[in-house]
Amino acid sequence: MNERDRQAVLFANEAFYAAFAGGDFTQMAALWGTDGIDGRSVPTCIHPGWAPLMGREPVLESWRAILRSPPPVEMRNPTVFTPDGTGETALVICYEVIEGETLVASNLFVRAEDGWRIFHHQAGPCPSAPKAESDDRADSIN
Amino acid sequence: MNERDRQAVLFANEAFYAAFAGGDFTQMAALWGTDGIDGRSVPTCIHPGWAPLMGREPVLESWRAILRSPPPVEMRNPTVFTPDGTGETALVICYEVIEGETLVASNLFVRAEDGWRIFHHQAGPCPSAPKAESDDRADSIN
Repeated sequence: MNERDRQAVLFANEAFYAAFAGGDFTQMAALWGTDGIDGRSVPTCIHPGWAPLMGREPVLESWRAILRSPPPVEMRNPTVFTPDGTGETALVICYEVIEGETLVASNLFVRAEDGWRIFHHQAGPCPSAPKAESDDRADSIN
Repeated sequence: MNERDRQAVLFANEAFYAAFAGGDFTQMAALWGTDGIDGRSVPTCIHPGWAPLMGREPVLESWRAILRSPPPVEMRNPTVFTPDGTGETALVICYEVIEGETLVASNLFVRAEDGWRIFHHQAGPCPSAPKAESDDRADSIN
């Protein structure tokens, strides 16, 4: 994955949390992927302590409810991974700090014609606080 | 993704939990992906309540420790998703039942030359018990 793509993925991840913290359902809906025709290329979402949601409609319904009273979520330390070699998929691991509690999230992005769409989100509790600064790991590697 | 690939992904996911429940570190290590040269194509793992682990070595070290006293984990209700259109990546969402507690897990598999390798695992607590029967969702769609 080239640097331009990596920045675009980080930007999409930031937009996701801006929509989350800002209670912007329209933006949130625009960021999520659409259902493919085969029933398998669908967005999935696992909120902390929830059962998994499968398919765009249940995923967006959950966000509609959450964004009515959005929590003051701060996203920290996003790191982009590209587990496959296709350049079409990127995994962002980041922390979510909500009123002093820390969660860790996996956000899976897939390239669309006009940008990156989120196709999977799982967040769960994490005892350790992230470092204060954003720290995309491979910056220090490259 | 064709049915043969879907079955191969489900098989790799079952092998992951067989290694987990059986304390088989050799099998577990064989299932995890290897580090790419760019520092981004690396395995990542988020155990419940842990900070994220990034890179094959820290991920395998965690499993080495866990598998010394493997918990009696039962995997249930795996569902295969193919968020991108490449056929090279598959996401399995499933439940883990460990001594009456239920977790929900996201397992990201990537196609390798000789099978599927796990490149990301996140598990977190889930209040709802899964259905007893395995239920790959798209079976009822197709």
